[in-house]
Amino acid sequence: MSHNSFGQLFRFTTWGESHGPAIGVVVDGGPPGLPLSAEAIQRDLDRRKPGQPRFTTQRREEDAVRILSGTFEDERDGVVKTTGTPISLLIENTDQRSKDYSDIKDKFRPGHADFTYQQKYGIRDYKGSGRASARETAARVAAGAVARLVIPSVRIRASLVQMGPHRIDYGRFDWKQVDQNPFFCADPVMASQWEGYLDGIRKDGNSVGAVIEVVAEGVPPGWGAPIYGKLSADLAAAMMSINAVKGVEIGDGMQAASLTGTENADEMRAGNNGPQFLSNRAGGILGGISNGDPVVVRFAVKPTSSIITPRRSVTTANEDTEVLTKGRHDPCVGIRAVPIGEAMMAVVLADHFLRHRGQTGRDGGVGF
Amino acid sequence: MSHNSFGQLFRFTTWGESHGPAIGVVVDGGPPGLPLSAEAIQRDLDRRKPGQPRFTTQRREEDAVRILSGTFEDERDGVVKTTGTPISLLIENTDQRSKDYSDIKDKFRPGHADFTYQQKYGIRDYKGSGRASARETAARVAAGAVARLVIPSVRIRASLVQMGPHRIDYGRFDWKQVDQNPFFCADPVMASQWEGYLDGIRKDGNSVGAVIEVVAEGVPPGWGAPIYGKLSADLAAAMMSINAVKGVEIGDGMQAASLTGTENADEMRAGNNGPQFLSNRAGGILGGISNGDPVVVRFAVKPTSSIITPRRSVTTANEDTEVLTKGRHDPCVGIRAVPIGEAMMAVVLADHFLRHRGQTGRDGGVGF
Amino acid sequence: MSHNSFGQLFRFTTWGESHGPAIGVVVDGGPPGLPLSAEAIQRDLDRRKPGQPRFTTQRREEDAVRILSGTFEDERDGVVKTTGTPISLLIENTDQRSKDYSDIKDKFRPGHADFTYQQKYGIRDYKGSGRASARETAARVAAGAVARLVIPSVRIRASLVQMGPHRIDYGRFDWKQVDQNPFFCADPVMASQWEGYLDGIRKDGNSVGAVIEVVAEGVPPGWGAPIYGKLSADLAAAMMSINAVKGVEIGDGMQAASLTGTENADEMRAGNNGPQFLSNRAGGILGGISNGDPVVVRFAVKPTSSIITPRRSVTTANEDTEVLTKGRHDPCVGIRAVPIGEAMMAVVLADHFLRHRGQTGRDGGVGF
Amino acid sequence: MSHNSFGQLFRFTTWGESHGPAIGVVVDGGPPGLPLSAEAIQRDLDRRKPGQPRFTTQRREEDAVRILSGTFEDERDGVVKTTGTPISLLIENTDQRSKDYSDIKDKFRPGHADFTYQQKYGIRDYKGSGRASARETAARVAAGAVARLVIPSVRIRASLVQMGPHRIDYGRFDWKQVDQNPFFCADPVMASQWEGYLDGIRKDGNSVGAVIEVVAEGVPPGWGAPIYGKLSADLAAAMMSINAVKGVEIGDGMQAASLTGTENADEMRAGNNGPQFLSNRAGGILGGISNGDPVVVRFAVKPTSSIITPRRSVTTANEDTEVLTKGRHDPCVGIRAVPIGEAMMAVVLADHFLRHRGQTGRDGGVGF
Repeated sequence: MSHNSFGQLFRFTTWGESHGPAIGVVVDGGPPGLPLSAEAIQRDLDRRKPGQPRFTTQRREEDAVRILSGTFEDERDGVVKTTGTPISLLIENTDQRSKDYSDIKDKFRPGHADFTYQQKYGIRDYKGSGRASARETAARVAAGAVARLVIPSVRIRASLVQMGPHRIDYGRFDWKQVDQNPFFCADPVMASQWEGYLDGIRKDGNSVGAVIEVVAEGVPPGWGAPIYGKLSADLAAAMMSINAVKGVEIGDGMQAASLTGTENADEMRAGNNGPQFLSNRAGGILGGISNGDPVVVRFAVKPTSSIITPRRSVTTANEDTEVLTKGRHDPCVGIRAVPIGEAMMAVVLADHFLRHRGQTGRDGGVGF
Repeated sequence: MSHNSFGQLFRFTTWGESHGPAIGVVVDGGPPGLPLSAEAIQRDLDRRKPGQPRFTTQRREEDAVRILSGTFEDERDGVVKTTGTPISLLIENTDQRSKDYSDIKDKFRPGHADFTYQQKYGIRDYKGSGRASARETAARVAAGAVARLVIPSVRIRASLVQMGPHRIDYGRFDWKQVDQNPFFCADPVMASQWEGYLDGIRKDGNSVGAVIEVVAEGVPPGWGAPIYGKLSADLAAAMMSINAVKGVEIGDGMQAASLTGTENADEMRAGNNGPQFLSNRAGGILGGISNGDPVVVRFAVKPTSSIITPRRSVTTANEDTEVLTKGRHDPCVGIRAVPIGEAMMAVVLADHFLRHRGQTGRDGGVGF
Repeated sequence: MSHNSFGQLFRFTTWGESHGPAIGVVVDGGPPGLPLSAEAIQRDLDRRKPGQPRFTTQRREEDAVRILSGTFEDERDGVVKTTGTPISLLIENTDQRSKDYSDIKDKFRPGHADFTYQQKYGIRDYKGSGRASARETAARVAAGAVARLVIPSVRIRASLVQMGPHRIDYGRFDWKQVDQNPFFCADPVMASQWEGYLDGIRKDGNSVGAVIEVVAEGVPPGWGAPIYGKLSADLAAAMMSINAVKGVEIGDGMQAASLTGTENADEMRAGNNGPQFLSNRAGGILGGISNGDPVVVRFAVKPTSSIITPRRSVTTANEDTEVLTKGRHDPCVGIRAVPIGEAMMAVVLADHFLRHRGQTGRDGGVGF
Repeated sequence: MSHNSFGQLFRFTTWGESHGPAIGVVVDGGPPGLPLSAEAIQRDLDRRKPGQPRFTTQRREEDAVRILSGTFEDERDGVVKTTGTPISLLIENTDQRSKDYSDIKDKFRPGHADFTYQQKYGIRDYKGSGRASARETAARVAAGAVARLVIPSVRIRASLVQMGPHRIDYGRFDWKQVDQNPFFCADPVMASQWEGYLDGIRKDGNSVGAVIEVVAEGVPPGWGAPIYGKLSADLAAAMMSINAVKGVEIGDGMQAASLTGTENADEMRAGNNGPQFLSNRAGGILGGISNGDPVVVRFAVKPTSSIITPRRSVTTANEDTEVLTKGRHDPCVGIRAVPIGEAMMAVVLADHFLRHRGQTGRDGGVGF
């Protein structure tokens, strides 16, 4: 992972600015023979797409993906499949309203990457935040859709589990609820409470943070590797690379610090197909390698810095000023981060599956 | 970062098992002309070394480092310096007591990597946990000592800030206290409370988790890069790759989820040398790029799974059993993780400094 | 270099099949602030473009490049410049004649990658050879055009120096001639002889190989690195990665085997700005590091396997057959490899420049 | 490949200077369960070792390798095997005669890396050429010995095929002869002629170049990948990274330029297990992917620049001087390059085998 590329064997490279002609991703190194259609990618993209009334930005991004390379119709069955060569996916930017950027151009938004891009590069595309825009995450979601095909026996789902200070009750956790509310929330009671809360945030011209939990079921033991090839480390990097993420947890996460060794140990009993863990505080990863239990990752998204409440700031000429960001912005960008978190889980697992298969010649563990 | 190697330009590779003849690290890609002595590395190693009465394992590791390559005496000033070629550092294992490993060999310790190594590889070095031993972290600390030389204007310090449920009071935070107690704790009051607490844990044959905070001051704006080259993502991977780490936070970390946009924005005022941030909720990183403020990272270490309280487990033949781990073990491995966290901060920053210099030709930001 | 990506700091990824909707390249990691226009890239592309009467394929590729990301107008001077973020370049495929592919689909062309793609992937895009088409090299040339901007003080030129058995006379070597004949040949006498020779080859329905020499002047001492970071090794990989290349030489190349040590030594004399080499058998590289002399690389391109003379082959069902390749093909693909070789020289040097600057903080050597 | 590391999945990192305490290599990413003993590595090392009377340097390197990590006794069969963790191999330097280095220290040897190391780094280990010494190749050979275990069905052999201007007669080529003469030469007649020739070179205080041919049999179709993952490109980089190599050829190599398409096409006939090639001009690689035929690589080694015949040179203070290199040097370093070439073939193939298995789940091609 470096530059704008992610992954070692299953690797993708994203490009494009928010207000340029298009964004895209090149997905490379995936296995040949996977059935791939624009429709499958589109389904995932549509989940991330803004445009839900009230709770996400009113920008109307079509996010229509085109497959420009890397697939071919298998004449034996008429199915379009991956060929093992790079898959180029392109999404045109269709809703770039011309607007007055003079404010953003000359002022740094507190909490935003404006300042650091300017310092690093000396030049920056300030339109719609350029490369720092969350628009890049559409490319991640597209890559994630391909990754899911690489590991079809793994089921990846995610839920918003905290918005501002309001956490879900895990006793009410029900995956089926996730698509029943505008928050991708597995707790229906909390979801309905969030509606009013977020309305208030939006009306105040403010924004709020969130926590997303991503769970991958069906990961066999053995994916990942010791030391700097840890599945947990790559997941941490993957999630931390998403815009606005400030914290990542595996299993018990930061709470593991509060535990004693007797509490933390996931005890085991003999099962029909080998040892079974009686709990999953580890989040499915021990020593950086999957243990067969669900892989559980959480990450915290800070509130967007683009708010219409004025904040003290400085101009590019280093003069005191105030700044507020007009325009269409999500009051809780964490909502849209739910499918993004799923995508990042998918790409990390797909990569580690291929790496594990390369090194050992097996798809999973040695078994019992 | 993959395999047993870390970093892109400043890169190191560690090797060695706990009970083999030696462990070591090869540090590659660093600048030539840095004054490097075994003594400088040894100082950092000694801070990590076990052997403090009561609170860390009684294993007596000499951890004497030897420089096997990559340095040469500069005859102009008589100083031994790096030559730009790989620096091989070797630490012999001198305190491997022969013992009965039959218990560990045939049983999986709950919460330990025994199970996953066995599943992944079908063969594992069970003596002293082999490659999964925290002994590998000595190699990280050695690499970190070299990394510090690459970025001499950056000051990296760390403190234990939580042990079990007991957090420090940041109002008492004083860096000078860190070396005045056996916990590397910046809060002297909490440090003295931890003494009794940890004594109890140890006497119970138990262990406990911890949180470490690492702070790097003097990082100029501009290090890091957007998207998959984010400084924050590499720090997350670096910290998550340390044994037993389950959570990583930058700046406000998981708490950022609870904030509103107005709270989260680090406001700015014009300063003599450019904009000044009035707060540092961002932990010194915006959009994956350093903003000139201290880089602040926290990570949570779970309690060691090697405890002398019996836990339910399974044998390698998949039969129910109980396991307890005799031997010399730290009741709180988080203590020793303090210098390790510093080392990982150093290697990430050294790498990003070189990468930034390569791309831009500058050491830091464009300035004002 | 792996997958479809090349380079470590200056890195690009190409994608696209010959008969898909488009091909493209994402150029990543280059410095910000470089003036970049589609016109500059187009100039290089036009040199590679087929369509010269008789000697290259009659396919009419427009090769019109579009810049989709990574640039922004610097309002201080009105110049569009690179921003340090990924530059996505797209070239649409506009001349894909629909034709009968049944022959190519079911038969392996001897000397072609048909067979190996089929064996590796089990599925292949046989239209226009898919990913194995020389069309991919347009993406390299586009990347090379960006790379040239990274190292503006380096002058890169190339000449065809051998076609079939006919080599140029270096006594007549004149760079100014390269653009005066359809062969990019620095020897005008040989160029005129090749005309008749190649006409004969073409009329015979045959093809012929060639050797290209690429020279980079203005490379300072110090680029490259020892062992596996050798400039020579990366150049060898770069050139060998071009379609149909079977041999690569640096300086004296294979002829170095015939020399004695006294002959091979490039002797030195003191010059005004440090030592001067009296000869350049080394091709500007010693120990994998540039020595300040012109970097000289040659590579051999085999004749294209797509010829209209029938050859014995086998069907995909493993039955004996004969195959000949109708369509528009270059009798000497080596001609178009001249600008491609320049591009690969440019990308390698740009990458090593950034790597050297990252490690040492200098643009070149320490000087005298 | 970059820095001092080679390979993507099967990866190794070498370190150490000629006159330091030791050299070594860390081999990472190889499969677990391979039987590995120091003896197996030693056999390959002994073939590379100098000390043969007259024709190689009189330095007496013991080259005794120690395995410091990465293996464990499998108690099921009592065999020591790789565990999938990094294998650290160490070779002590035992024959470093103290000598007067003042000449080498202050003068640049023409044709040697002295000058470029000095320019790049500003400091260099001039003792025994430091990192630029051919001693590093012992580490390659050790890595190659491990790589051979990864691909046990592949047979890799090499022969010296040219010394100075004298080439072997392929009509007399007999692999069994390779270990019957001091030149690793498959042509016994030529080998006996070389004896007198090389004696003359040595007595003249001169040196001479050579060409080595490496052949890998048993490589299945499908290893390698298109574009920048080409097997041929990685082989070119691998061979070009060996000290003193100036040219690399695959199959017909530079001669491919002289061929017509009809000559170059390796025709095919249906065989019992799929298509058979009737010739192997391709050297076993088409489109960067192995085709099942023997992989054939040749590389040219220039004569060593360390000769006792004086050459014009310059001091480090940029003053004219003469230089000659006393000491024990090979008159034809190409001889020792034979096992090194085998080792580099082995590491490239091992890496591509794992990469292919990772991407496709197969060991070779899809078959017929």
